[in-house]
Amino acid sequence: MITAPPRFAAHLARTADQVEAMLAHLLDDAPQPGEALRPPRLLAAMRHAVLGGGKRLRPFLMIEAARLFGVEGDRVVRASTAVELVHCYSLVHDDLPQMDDDDLRRGRPTVHRAFDEATAILAGDALLTLAFDVAADPATHADPAVRAELVLRLARASGLGGMVGGQMLDLAAEGRWTADRRPAALGDAEIRRLQAMKTGALLRLPLEAGALLAGAATSDVARLGRFGAVVGLAFQIADDLLDVEASAEAMGKATGKDAARGKGTLVALHGVSAMKAELDRLVAAASAELAVYGTRAETLIAAARFIAERKS
Amino acid sequence: MITAPPRFAAHLARTADQVEAMLAHLLDDAPQPGEALRPPRLLAAMRHAVLGGGKRLRPFLMIEAARLFGVEGDRVVRASTAVELVHCYSLVHDDLPQMDDDDLRRGRPTVHRAFDEATAILAGDALLTLAFDVAADPATHADPAVRAELVLRLARASGLGGMVGGQMLDLAAEGRWTADRRPAALGDAEIRRLQAMKTGALLRLPLEAGALLAGAATSDVARLGRFGAVVGLAFQIADDLLDVEASAEAMGKATGKDAARGKGTLVALHGVSAMKAELDRLVAAASAELAVYGTRAETLIAAARFIAERKS
Repeated sequence: MITAPPRFAAHLARTADQVEAMLAHLLDDAPQPGEALRPPRLLAAMRHAVLGGGKRLRPFLMIEAARLFGVEGDRVVRASTAVELVHCYSLVHDDLPQMDDDDLRRGRPTVHRAFDEATAILAGDALLTLAFDVAADPATHADPAVRAELVLRLARASGLGGMVGGQMLDLAAEGRWTADRRPAALGDAEIRRLQAMKTGALLRLPLEAGALLAGAATSDVARLGRFGAVVGLAFQIADDLLDVEASAEAMGKATGKDAARGKGTLVALHGVSAMKAELDRLVAAASAELAVYGTRAETLIAAARFIAERKS
Repeated sequence: MITAPPRFAAHLARTADQVEAMLAHLLDDAPQPGEALRPPRLLAAMRHAVLGGGKRLRPFLMIEAARLFGVEGDRVVRASTAVELVHCYSLVHDDLPQMDDDDLRRGRPTVHRAFDEATAILAGDALLTLAFDVAADPATHADPAVRAELVLRLARASGLGGMVGGQMLDLAAEGRWTADRRPAALGDAEIRRLQAMKTGALLRLPLEAGALLAGAATSDVARLGRFGAVVGLAFQIADDLLDVEASAEAMGKATGKDAARGKGTLVALHGVSAMKAELDRLVAAASAELAVYGTRAETLIAAARFIAERKS
């Protein structure tokens, strides 16, 4: 495998700092117009869920997709937090005892462990709501048509036909609602569809959204969407490989859980070496998709490689 | 008290049927563009939460506020479902054992009783997401600036500084997070602020939003907002009176729970007769606010009266 250049890691870290600062600003104590008061315990739980780490991959993809079409700056960073807020809310709810029952996230207690379950449910709800607040706010983009389109695409990627629906399919595949607790194993196509919904949609979205924010042509938005679909699949395969191979220490969360749950993954279905080979093919396909943009697309291609090769 | 005219009840019921039909359409099996698949169990839980009854007061207020400024039709009905979807999601999550722990809603099992807690959490998440999908969709309004503004106001009314924050304050007031389980009772101003957030914001929102949808002047949007704040307070006082006086049968949910939980309400603080007198004053204030519109405002004034006098 070709390795992502060291300066990519530095660029990713610098961007994460910008995103972190914007998230901290969005989650400060001051009520916004139309808000009465931000209850301190709720706000603390939201900050716990969002601040203090994370690679901010989804915001990075949005920021770099906008940059590909010549747009950068604070507004794009602001817009990029919308997808991160949706991602963070989904982790808070998925970690609940009623769902995946995880105690650890990014090396820290999950929100329901650090606070309590009611607070975690409400903090997740408020983060999801804040994501749409950010997307619709004039401070995010001057053109209301772009803001409305951002909201619509974010909602479609996140809702019953996207991320939430994918989590539902995942619980079903674990045998949550079958009497014998072990339904028929998913096939290749079913696993790919489940993963495209559960994790793929929210990796594809920022790539399309970045192009939209920059006023790119419809064909460019579609191209970034195809790139995003490949990146989303690569992300999930890498995630499944990490669950098999990485230590809990490196991941900051429990590993080996997929096998313990009998969870259908492409890695479980086809084996580690076959999926490592598929990862290489996906990185090549992602690069080919953006070849039309020449060297301008180097950072996004490096991001695809980073996502496929990451160690945590 | 002056009673709302019988034809008001018929008009409310007809409007509820239109809203119900639109909600059923939004929750049909067919995936929308950008959605892969709508998982059947998730969709069934969402339909259980949303369809089959309810007065649809919030949509009615939005539809009538738009009509006051000369706009009506399918698009307004569609827009009005956004606020109902937020309302329904909040009931699903508030009914969870981790929150208010209710088994009955509109005379039927709550979502987590009819399905399970994981499904209820995800159905609530998906309903909230769908609300913003609807608000941002071009099918809802031709002008993207109106759609973006609708999303922004809906998010502000619903999030950490609005409805979700109000639910958080309510749990805190019940002593959820104090060692002795009974914190200092809330005073008049604190109760009013809590209720303005928890229930008031989502009754005020449709009145402002209806005016916005119709392209009303800023001063008219603000006037409808003031009317909405009064209506929101009247709604809550009537709700608290019903909790004291009505039967569980009439309400389709458990009653007498406020007192059992030592919950601070204005009725508990000031007594039943004082708050009945305040309700009369609020209806008069609501009428006065809309006097400038003459007979055109009759339906909205009748709605305020209905909300104050309702028996369930």
